[in-house]
Amino acid sequence: MADLATVAAEATATAVDPANWTCPAPLRDQPVVVMGHGGGGALSAELIDQVFAPAYGNPTLAALTDSAVLDLGGARVAFSTDSYVVRPLFFPGGSLGDLAVNGTVNDLAMSGARPAYLSAAFVLEEGVELAVVERIAHAVGAAARAADVIIATGDTKVVESGHGDGVYVTTAGVGLVPDGVDIRPQRARPGDAVIVSGPIGLHGVAIMSVREGLEFGIEIASDTAPLAGLVADMLAVTRDIHVLRDPTRGGLGTSLNEIARASGTGVRLRERAIPVPDEVVNACGFLGLDPLYVANEGRLVAFVPPQEAEAVLAAMRAHPQGGGAVLVGECVEDHPGMVVVATALGGTRVVDLPLGEQLPRIC
Amino acid sequence: MADLATVAAEATATAVDPANWTCPAPLRDQPVVVMGHGGGGALSAELIDQVFAPAYGNPTLAALTDSAVLDLGGARVAFSTDSYVVRPLFFPGGSLGDLAVNGTVNDLAMSGARPAYLSAAFVLEEGVELAVVERIAHAVGAAARAADVIIATGDTKVVESGHGDGVYVTTAGVGLVPDGVDIRPQRARPGDAVIVSGPIGLHGVAIMSVREGLEFGIEIASDTAPLAGLVADMLAVTRDIHVLRDPTRGGLGTSLNEIARASGTGVRLRERAIPVPDEVVNACGFLGLDPLYVANEGRLVAFVPPQEAEAVLAAMRAHPQGGGAVLVGECVEDHPGMVVVATALGGTRVVDLPLGEQLPRIC
Repeated sequence: MADLATVAAEATATAVDPANWTCPAPLRDQPVVVMGHGGGGALSAELIDQVFAPAYGNPTLAALTDSAVLDLGGARVAFSTDSYVVRPLFFPGGSLGDLAVNGTVNDLAMSGARPAYLSAAFVLEEGVELAVVERIAHAVGAAARAADVIIATGDTKVVESGHGDGVYVTTAGVGLVPDGVDIRPQRARPGDAVIVSGPIGLHGVAIMSVREGLEFGIEIASDTAPLAGLVADMLAVTRDIHVLRDPTRGGLGTSLNEIARASGTGVRLRERAIPVPDEVVNACGFLGLDPLYVANEGRLVAFVPPQEAEAVLAAMRAHPQGGGAVLVGECVEDHPGMVVVATALGGTRVVDLPLGEQLPRIC
Repeated sequence: MADLATVAAEATATAVDPANWTCPAPLRDQPVVVMGHGGGGALSAELIDQVFAPAYGNPTLAALTDSAVLDLGGARVAFSTDSYVVRPLFFPGGSLGDLAVNGTVNDLAMSGARPAYLSAAFVLEEGVELAVVERIAHAVGAAARAADVIIATGDTKVVESGHGDGVYVTTAGVGLVPDGVDIRPQRARPGDAVIVSGPIGLHGVAIMSVREGLEFGIEIASDTAPLAGLVADMLAVTRDIHVLRDPTRGGLGTSLNEIARASGTGVRLRERAIPVPDEVVNACGFLGLDPLYVANEGRLVAFVPPQEAEAVLAAMRAHPQGGGAVLVGECVEDHPGMVVVATALGGTRVVDLPLGEQLPRIC
C-alpha cells in the first residue's frame, strides 16, 4: 500500500490526475465509484478492505460488525452509523425518516445493546419543499419515540440544487451492551440454529413497487421496524446468543455470507423453511430478483446454540416483531465460509456474496 | 403546531402538495429550502426551532450546544455529529477529511470532553475517482491519529451522478466529560473574560481563495486543527471554564451571539484586540466580507471567570493551538443578549446574528 500512502501524504489543493493513479486491484478494475460500491456486497467489502481499513488502520473497525462495542468510562457502549439515501423519500410502510431511526437502532440492537441516544444529520438540497423536510423530521421523531430512543444532537447542511436528492439523513447511535453479552459474527459455530424473525423481502419489493410505478394487485408495505425490544426478549431467554444481524442491503443471502466468512463455518438452509410471502415471490418473479438478496428493514437473523433454539423461538413469536419467527437452517462444519440451500427438489445450491445490491438506494 | 403534526401523521407515499401546506412563520416566507438554511445563522436557528425541535420534542436537543452530554451507564458521555459538504474537497491547509475529523473532535471538546471514538459515513457520487475517495479516507485516518481518536465504525452509500458532489462525509463522535466540568453557553455571566485562541478568518478566506481562483499574493491556509489538547490544558488550570465554542460557520460574530442569547448576558468586544491577520483583512476587503462572520476551523472562544483569565491565557499560549490567544472582551450586564464592539474610533457597533453564512458550503 506504499503507493496509496504516498498519494494520501501528497494530498494538496490540486485536482487529482486519474492517469497517474493506480487502482488497487481488484476493485473490478474501476478507477471510479460505481453504484455497486454502495450496495453492501462484494464491491462494498473491497472498498472497506482496500480503501477505508488501510486508511484508518485500527483494530476496532476491523471487526466489521453492524456496530462497534467500545469501553467508555467503564461502560460497554455500542456505537453505529449509517447514511440514508433511499429513493423515493416516502413509500408504503414508511419513509426515509423511519429507516434512519430504525436502521441505526437495529444496528445497535444487533450487538445486543439497548439503544439510548441517536444523532441526526440532514443534508438538504436547495429548493426542496420545507414541508418535505418537516415530514421527514416528524417521521424521525415518531420513530425515535416508538423505539424509545432520544434524538440528542443533530446538524443541517444545504447543498445546491443538483448536488443532492431532496433529503439525505445520517444517523449515529449509542447504547449500552448488557453484561455477559458478546454477539458478533465471529461467534457462529457448527450446530448453531439459524432463525429468521419473519417474512423476508418486503422492504425491497415495497420500494420497487413505488419507484417503478408497479402494481402487484396488493400493496406491499416495507417491514421497517425497531428490533431492540425483540432482542431484549431473546436475551431474557439466554445471554448466549452468538450472532444477530439485520439483513438490510443485500438481503438475507448477503448477511449469511458475511457471517459464514467471518466465523469460518458453513451455513445450510432449508429452502422450504425460508419465509418468503407469496406477494414477494410473485413480484420477484416479475422483476427477475432473488428474494434471498432483497433488502429487509425490520427482520433479523439469529445464530443460537441448538439447545436454546426452541426457547428463543418461543420468546420471539410472543413479540410483535417476531410473530413469524422460524428455524431456517443450521451452522455446519462442511463447506466453511459458504452458504448453501437444500432445495425443495432435493438438490443444493450455493448462495454466494453478490457484487452489489440488486436495487440501488434501497436504504 | 397542530397542523404540522397532522401533516406528519398523514405521511404517505404520495407526493407533497406545497399548495396545501402552510409554512410555519417566519422562515422568511420561503416554502423551500434555501442555501442559508445550512449557514448556521438565523435561518438555521429557525429551522431547528420550528421544524426539528417540535418534531423530536425532547429536552436534550433543546440545549443546542455543540454536543449533547448524556448519561450512559454512569459515564458522562459527550455526543455530537456534523455533515461535511465543503467545496472544493481539497484546499490550502486541508481537505474535507480533515474537517470531518477536526470538526467533530472540536464539537466534543467544546463541552470539555476528551474525544475518544468517531464514526465516518460517506455518501459518494457515482463516477467520482476512487483516488479522490482514498485521499479523503487517508486524510480522515491521519487527522484521527493526530487527534488521538479512533474511527470505530462507518458506512458508505453511493448516489447517482448529479445527486451528490464527489464526497460528503458525516462524522459523529463520543468522548468522556471529566468530573466537575460543566461547559455550556448558558453559563456565561457578567464579568467573564472572553478569550480567542488565535487569529480568525483563515479557513473561510482559504476556501474562497481556491473556490474563486483568487490570489492574494500570499497563500492563506485553513486553520483546521484539533482543539481537544488545548482544552485539556485549559481545564488543567481550572475546571470552572464557563463556555467554549469553536466559531465555525458564521464565524466569531455568530458564536458570540448564540452565547449572549443563551445566557442572557451582553458581550462587549474591543475591536483592536480581535486578532485578524493582515491577509484576512485584505481578502475580506476585496471580497466585501466581515472577518467577524468568516468561518474558522481551528479556533475557540472561551468565557472564563475574570480571576482565572491570566492563568488560562498563559496555559493557552503554551500550547501549539493557542499561541495566539488574546483577551478580546468581557461579558457585561448591559444590553443582555447582544454583542457590541467598541471601535477603534471610540464608538460602538452592534454585531448581530446573520441570516446565514456568507460563504455557502464552507464546512
